[in-house]
Amino acid sequence: MPLAVALVHHPVTDRNGDVITSAVTNLDLHDLARTAMTYGVDGYYVVTPVEEQQRLVQRLLDHWRQGHGAHYNPDRARALQLVEVVDTLDAALGKWRQRSSDSAVPLLTGAGREDGIGFPAATSLLREKPLLLTLGTGSGLADEIFGHGWPVLEPIAGVGDYNHLPVRAAAAIMLDRIRTCEAASGAARD
Amino acid sequence: MPLAVALVHHPVTDRNGDVITSAVTNLDLHDLARTAMTYGVDGYYVVTPVEEQQRLVQRLLDHWRQGHGAHYNPDRARALQLVEVVDTLDAALGKWRQRSSDSAVPLLTGAGREDGIGFPAATSLLREKPLLLTLGTGSGLADEIFGHGWPVLEPIAGVGDYNHLPVRAAAAIMLDRIRTCEAASGAARD
Repeated sequence: MPLAVALVHHPVTDRNGDVITSAVTNLDLHDLARTAMTYGVDGYYVVTPVEEQQRLVQRLLDHWRQGHGAHYNPDRARALQLVEVVDTLDAALGKWRQRSSDSAVPLLTGAGREDGIGFPAATSLLREKPLLLTLGTGSGLADEIFGHGWPVLEPIAGVGDYNHLPVRAAAAIMLDRIRTCEAASGAARD
Repeated sequence: MPLAVALVHHPVTDRNGDVITSAVTNLDLHDLARTAMTYGVDGYYVVTPVEEQQRLVQRLLDHWRQGHGAHYNPDRARALQLVEVVDTLDAALGKWRQRSSDSAVPLLTGAGREDGIGFPAATSLLREKPLLLTLGTGSGLADEIFGHGWPVLEPIAGVGDYNHLPVRAAAAIMLDRIRTCEAASGAARD
C-alpha cells in the first residue's frame, strides 16, 4: 500500500516538555524529500499552522520546482514535487486519505515511546492500509497526538544509551527498515 | 571491532564530475555526530584541507563542547566530542589506526559504485578489523580515492530509479544496517 510522510511543527515539545511550534527549516524540506523520493514515498506533508512559515515553504518550493533551482538541480525539483504544506496533522491525513484510501492511518513516532509496534509489524500494517509516517520536530510529537488510538512505531534503538537521532536520520532509517522488511518479505507493493 | 566515520570534503566531485573541495556545513557536523553517537561509533573525522574551514569547524566545536552550547544542550556536546578535523583521508586513517589498530581500513562509499560488497559482508569485515566508513560530500568521493584497493560498500538501493540520498541520510542508513546486521548475527562488539 502507499506510504506518505508528515513532518509536524505543531504540536511538538521542546526539551523541557512544553508544547511549542517549531520553525520549518530548509534542510528538513530537502533532506526528507530526497529520502522519501528514494524510498518510493508518495507524499510529504509539512505541517505548520503559522502562515508566515507556510509562505516561506511555498517560496522555497517555487524556487526549486519552477525557478532557478529547477534548472540548476532537476533531481531536487523532482523530490520537492512530493511536498505539500498543511495547517494540521488532521489536514495532512485528510489529504492523504483523499489521495490513497479512507483506511489510511498515521503511524506515529517518538524516541521515548514504549507502546510501539516493531518494524516487521509496521510492514505488515502497510500491506493492509496506506500509512502516514508521522515525525515530530523539536523534541517530538506532543502527547495530545497520541490520544487518537493511532498505531505507534517503536523507537530506533542504537547502541548504548544515547538516543538523540536527528529527525532527518530517524526518517531515513525508518523508511529503509520498512521498505527493506517489505522487500524481504516479498510483499507486492502498489 | 571499533568503527569510525570520515566525512570527506576533498577530493570529491561536483555534479559535473569535476574534482572540487566542498564547504563544511554546520548541519553535517551535528547530524553525523548525533547519528554516530547513537550507533556507538568511536570517531568522526571531518576531512578538509582548507585552513579557514578547519578553523570554522574548531570554532563550532568549541562553542558546543565548552561554550554556551555545552550548557544549553549537553547531548549535542557529548556527540560532538567525537569530531576531529584533519587535512586528508590519509591523516584520518593514520589517527584512526593509532586509536584502534594498524589493521584498520577505510570502507569507501559511492552512490554509483558497482564494485561494492554487501552489508552482511561489511559486517563480517568489521568483525575482523576496525573500519573507517568513508563518505563523500558533494556528488561523492573522487575516483583517486578508489585506487588504493580499499573495500567499497554497495550503494543503498531504494525503490525505483531515484538515487540522491543526502549524505546525512546515507550515513544513518549505513550505520543502522551495519549495526543491525551485527546485532542480528550475535557478534561480539568491543
